[in-house]
Amino acid sequence: MHYKRFIMMLPNLSLINVNSNQGARGCFHQRGWKPCLKSAVLCTFGSFLLLFLCDCDAAGSEFSRISESQSSRQLTLTERISEIGFSQTIEVSDVLLETRSSFQDIKIYQSPHFGKVLVLDDVVQITERDGDSYNEMMAHIPMMAHPSPKRVLVIGGGDGYVLSEVLKHPSVEHVDHVDLDAEVIDVCRKYFPWGDAWDDPRVRLHTVDGSSFIRNAQKGFYDVIVQDSSDPFGDDGEILPSSVLYEKEHFHHLYAALADNGVFNFQAETLGIPSDFNGILKWRSLLLADDMFKAVRYGTIAIPTYPTGQIGFLLCTKKKETAVMNERKMASIRERFNAIEENHMGTTYYQPRLQISAFDLPLAAERRIYGSDFVL
Amino acid sequence: MHYKRFIMMLPNLSLINVNSNQGARGCFHQRGWKPCLKSAVLCTFGSFLLLFLCDCDAAGSEFSRISESQSSRQLTLTERISEIGFSQTIEVSDVLLETRSSFQDIKIYQSPHFGKVLVLDDVVQITERDGDSYNEMMAHIPMMAHPSPKRVLVIGGGDGYVLSEVLKHPSVEHVDHVDLDAEVIDVCRKYFPWGDAWDDPRVRLHTVDGSSFIRNAQKGFYDVIVQDSSDPFGDDGEILPSSVLYEKEHFHHLYAALADNGVFNFQAETLGIPSDFNGILKWRSLLLADDMFKAVRYGTIAIPTYPTGQIGFLLCTKKKETAVMNERKMASIRERFNAIEENHMGTTYYQPRLQISAFDLPLAAERRIYGSDFVL
Repeated sequence: MHYKRFIMMLPNLSLINVNSNQGARGCFHQRGWKPCLKSAVLCTFGSFLLLFLCDCDAAGSEFSRISESQSSRQLTLTERISEIGFSQTIEVSDVLLETRSSFQDIKIYQSPHFGKVLVLDDVVQITERDGDSYNEMMAHIPMMAHPSPKRVLVIGGGDGYVLSEVLKHPSVEHVDHVDLDAEVIDVCRKYFPWGDAWDDPRVRLHTVDGSSFIRNAQKGFYDVIVQDSSDPFGDDGEILPSSVLYEKEHFHHLYAALADNGVFNFQAETLGIPSDFNGILKWRSLLLADDMFKAVRYGTIAIPTYPTGQIGFLLCTKKKETAVMNERKMASIRERFNAIEENHMGTTYYQPRLQISAFDLPLAAERRIYGSDFVL
Repeated sequence: MHYKRFIMMLPNLSLINVNSNQGARGCFHQRGWKPCLKSAVLCTFGSFLLLFLCDCDAAGSEFSRISESQSSRQLTLTERISEIGFSQTIEVSDVLLETRSSFQDIKIYQSPHFGKVLVLDDVVQITERDGDSYNEMMAHIPMMAHPSPKRVLVIGGGDGYVLSEVLKHPSVEHVDHVDLDAEVIDVCRKYFPWGDAWDDPRVRLHTVDGSSFIRNAQKGFYDVIVQDSSDPFGDDGEILPSSVLYEKEHFHHLYAALADNGVFNFQAETLGIPSDFNGILKWRSLLLADDMFKAVRYGTIAIPTYPTGQIGFLLCTKKKETAVMNERKMASIRERFNAIEENHMGTTYYQPRLQISAFDLPLAAERRIYGSDFVL
């Protein structure tokens, strides 16, 4: 799952607004399994609640205040990206679960519009309403790019949604799912409709960290690897723990673990945030260097509850021709897609035409990403 | 231009948040030239400011409070769409212009990230940063769908951006631009880089309302009509003044004013808001009924500062084959696009491949819009 940069507000009686004046969105980042937001102090003044979210190691400071609301109970989850002076808020109505694992706080909220919302360490991870876009695209784009994926590795994605999409492909014989926190998996298994993914006999769950798993993985074993991880760095260039999953060494291990015709797909941030865009350029050159992947392409996904309504992925193929879509391949993808639908395991966002369209970006973005290789 | 549903906050010393508890986003709609938000009362309590935005004729009520900020001067523009429990805020740093025309308040702000922001009657209309996406797509998709557009009509779009994009096409001989408020045009002419659009000798400006202009337009005159208008109704079905531009009679007049191979394109709201989606379905059936347009297709645009990061258009063609893109047509579009670029009038968002890709929607959306006509 994409570990989003949300600030969570927890009033019992009031609508809350948090306004942060820190200089960079970095301190709101979910930092892998070591969250940035380390303490929260709740104070009650009459019918008002005041919540201060304190970032212990960020240079900036945060400020929050609960405003009186005419609604008797309204919870909001607000994310601010100070790099672009933009924030967004979703409203939730009920707390369904509050617990803590060895690694983090785990919460599930009910939103009238967005359905159940998974929140880890005060960071929104997924909503039932628009989670299909991100997770279906993360899974089916690489699965369909490969002609017949049998062995799949999913790194991260502890909510299980990417895993459940991968399992819709009847060619799959074996899936390794690598995530650190077994308790998140237990919670998602219970609360989300895709929660039976881990019961599939093809799945082997490994509760270890992704970078060490891939370092020891069998060479040439996997047809497809999907990395659904947290963000690697903040807007100010601050290095976050998950950045090891975006580094040269890790990419080399991933490459080595893939079969000759292998496909690697990973969460690669947002076009509309400048530091994210710089990340896309940097990762792409790492992945193409040292005689590694022959094609690395950025694909785009529309998703209302992710900042700026957009998130993307980098699809990396060992063979250049694997990335090329032609009529013959598209016909095969449509056939495979029809078979999935006939098995009553269809999608709601992914459709075969997006196998081409998702890579058609705004002109200026394509020019920056592909440089002299850009063609109209 | 798309008349967005923003609430604008105006502190001098503080960061402001407005939280509305109304039942429908309708009362935040820009209602054509008769704005919904009719009065604002500013009260000062010590270092705090309280802003109440009063909707004089909406059933719901609004509540706002300015929170103290550690920043000495921070202005924010917040839009809330209560239908989906979602809101977003952009931060601006300076007020560049505050004036009033016969019809509305006109303001221009500076945003550190989004550039200049045009605000009419407390409703954000356009930002320099991401205005390219909406305006380039609104203009070039229909212009490129037509083999050689000579006579063009732009309804609305008082900021001039769509007009300036239309004028990039060397085939254009005559453009009628119809908008009501000459003062908005004067302001945009001065403040925005595309403000010289009205100086083009091919342009005739008509300051009248679009529905009466089209009623009296010469039959079969226009090759392309672009309608860049405000939203037609609120989430609760509330009818807004611009709804006349989305009604059967108006669509018939538009159809009649188009040449045999004519193309009509108009702002058609957001996939992610249920009432907007119902509008798309309704307008599409009106446009296809009574032996009118032969193809009506929804295209999508990614734009961070519009709610949910997405807006769309309905492209309507008198001939079915005009809507079909094939290799021969795409080659011609690429040639025309190259010629525009060689004239140093290139785009930053629109590129020829979007002429196909923009119509590839999430699967569930396509299934609802096209029903039994849907093909993978």
